[in-house]
Amino acid sequence: MADQLPQGYRAAGIYSGVKSDTSKLDLSLLLSDRPAVAAGVYTQNLVCGAPVTLCRARTPSESIQAVVINSGVANACTGEQGDRDAEQMAAKVAETCKLDEKQVLVMSTGIIGEMLPMEKICPGIETVVAKLEPSEAGLIAAAQGMMTTDTRHKVCSREIQLEQPVRICGMAKGAAMIGPNMATMLAVVVTDASLNVNDAHEGLADAVNESFNCISVDGHTSTSDTVLLLANGAAGGPVLSGRDLAKFQATLVEVCEDLAQSIPADGEGASHLITVEVHGGKTRKDAVKIAKTIADSPLVKTAVAGNDPNWGRIVSAAGYSGIAFDPTKVSLLINGLLLYEHGAPVKFDASAVSESIKADRNTNIVLLLDEGTASARFWTTDLTTEYVRLNADYHT
Amino acid sequence: MADQLPQGYRAAGIYSGVKSDTSKLDLSLLLSDRPAVAAGVYTQNLVCGAPVTLCRARTPSESIQAVVINSGVANACTGEQGDRDAEQMAAKVAETCKLDEKQVLVMSTGIIGEMLPMEKICPGIETVVAKLEPSEAGLIAAAQGMMTTDTRHKVCSREIQLEQPVRICGMAKGAAMIGPNMATMLAVVVTDASLNVNDAHEGLADAVNESFNCISVDGHTSTSDTVLLLANGAAGGPVLSGRDLAKFQATLVEVCEDLAQSIPADGEGASHLITVEVHGGKTRKDAVKIAKTIADSPLVKTAVAGNDPNWGRIVSAAGYSGIAFDPTKVSLLINGLLLYEHGAPVKFDASAVSESIKADRNTNIVLLLDEGTASARFWTTDLTTEYVRLNADYHT
Repeated sequence: MADQLPQGYRAAGIYSGVKSDTSKLDLSLLLSDRPAVAAGVYTQNLVCGAPVTLCRARTPSESIQAVVINSGVANACTGEQGDRDAEQMAAKVAETCKLDEKQVLVMSTGIIGEMLPMEKICPGIETVVAKLEPSEAGLIAAAQGMMTTDTRHKVCSREIQLEQPVRICGMAKGAAMIGPNMATMLAVVVTDASLNVNDAHEGLADAVNESFNCISVDGHTSTSDTVLLLANGAAGGPVLSGRDLAKFQATLVEVCEDLAQSIPADGEGASHLITVEVHGGKTRKDAVKIAKTIADSPLVKTAVAGNDPNWGRIVSAAGYSGIAFDPTKVSLLINGLLLYEHGAPVKFDASAVSESIKADRNTNIVLLLDEGTASARFWTTDLTTEYVRLNADYHT
Repeated sequence: MADQLPQGYRAAGIYSGVKSDTSKLDLSLLLSDRPAVAAGVYTQNLVCGAPVTLCRARTPSESIQAVVINSGVANACTGEQGDRDAEQMAAKVAETCKLDEKQVLVMSTGIIGEMLPMEKICPGIETVVAKLEPSEAGLIAAAQGMMTTDTRHKVCSREIQLEQPVRICGMAKGAAMIGPNMATMLAVVVTDASLNVNDAHEGLADAVNESFNCISVDGHTSTSDTVLLLANGAAGGPVLSGRDLAKFQATLVEVCEDLAQSIPADGEGASHLITVEVHGGKTRKDAVKIAKTIADSPLVKTAVAGNDPNWGRIVSAAGYSGIAFDPTKVSLLINGLLLYEHGAPVKFDASAVSESIKADRNTNIVLLLDEGTASARFWTTDLTTEYVRLNADYHT
């Protein structure tokens, strides 16, 4: 299926001059032809960008119509002028599209501590409005306009058959935290389903918990991380509830998982996408904490980079996660091969496991706890010399 | 001052055959000529080595006389046979030195998941006992016998003038967590002061909190981390109390800090020792958490490796530490140069700051919070391509 925008949306992305590389896009707009229910989930970082402050104040909402996004400059750590610039971006979109400025949300990603070049952004907004189209090309251009160190744009679309078909489409940016001042993870998911504002808010929060909150590249939480959901109801039909709402929610999770995974998968410096699964936890919170601790361990990540089936690093990372479990009941598999069972290493063919890691860009780590029935999945990248080179040489 | 053992102690280190490299030492012994008060602080990892279990059960104590240490094999994740082997090491020392086996503590460091070669260790214990001497040479050999990937032995001695002079001497191993299955941090501090067992226990716990618990290389807590303190009273004089005890404690902290710093300073793959200082925290716990979050950030560590004065990575790491503070009051210095003040970047000469990082193996990061009067210091290494290469290629 071609990636497509849900009904009632148009999108575009252009080069406005924020980035120095004129071959790239740096300003995107998503517009709904009618007021949409909107919800947002934002960075937990105390130090947050001006656009995050603006969006937090304007969501949840029942009247959002536009999201404007620039890349190249994050408008974070920019003081009161930064707040005014974010408001001016929204106001310029509102003026050009004949909306109220409160109907516009703003996202920015890029270098932090620099002021937005408003003299380029304001004319850019007029240009991007003129280019809006309800097509796949518009969607892809919008996804490209939010890229920083990403090597490819990230888009995911689904259609669900309810009484009438509804569509969910998301776009995201973020590339394995390479280029840290541009490390922001941004995503916008739009749907033509009709949602009430509470369901949109809670549904997005739940979906983010199972997806964007389960990826980790280096544990660094950006100042600007934002995920937005817009639901404009253009598909027609009643406000979703009951089974239809559950079906919608399951698909929303799928779209968010797809977009979330694509972020570590796009690590320029990474040679593996690692999926850490923890099963048999007492609670989901326990399972998530253990999976995250393993995924964040530089020693686990370097082992995978070196195709090293190093069960000791994985088991000991679980051990210092802060979650209580019985170490004598732990078992571990890498790529389906059993390395450790009931608290002790088993005899295994180390070169076969190493070969299986080397042969596949995806590495699967499964830890079995036997403490309960809760599970969690976490996605991360390996840690390569190339990652360090890219991050150390970022400014030079 | 030459490094010297306190009175009433002898030490030795030999090659017993646990390591394959015959040019290295791998078995050490520290012996007190009389029962000593002993305290221990151990890994928080749920998955812990057999020697940790043994030492935990035998400390605090008023009757310890020996600490036997092997390197090469950690005796961790080795099940009940591992427990029996640790006990047998202690029993063999006791038999050879005419002690009760409960008077002996055991430390092991090296590969996890492998059994100790007891057929080499037991004759080795007879050899190392025969070599015991109360000299600097004995101390250094003992410090060398506990090394794994360390490039140099780590010893620190101090003498304090109380009513009679007392001596504190410590030795440690650990090398920036390179070679993760050998990543264990071990330290033994011996003194000829006379301490009561409670003061020894609490004093060691406090000293470890300000030293070994304030170093971090990759956030990975080993299965075998152990710090022991022995106080045999051979200096004579009363059990320390009041001002003398406070003086002793201050020196114990100094010795522990010196040894703790030497661990990240000995990172083979590291090009900088980073000191993160946080001042103006509401509580010491807050300050420690923020300092640790900055020190653990791979993005901060790669920035230092690249001589990049990247204030954004440091301030944003503080922001996601989970500690509440007012971001508009934060200021930041690198190597004494102000980069960020009251929540906003200041104009600074980036190439001068970069030059200052490049010119010195020590990088000093100071974050000022202005929330209270608590401070913390944390030591870590930078993250270099060499670190990744060493850890990824560890098994090959």
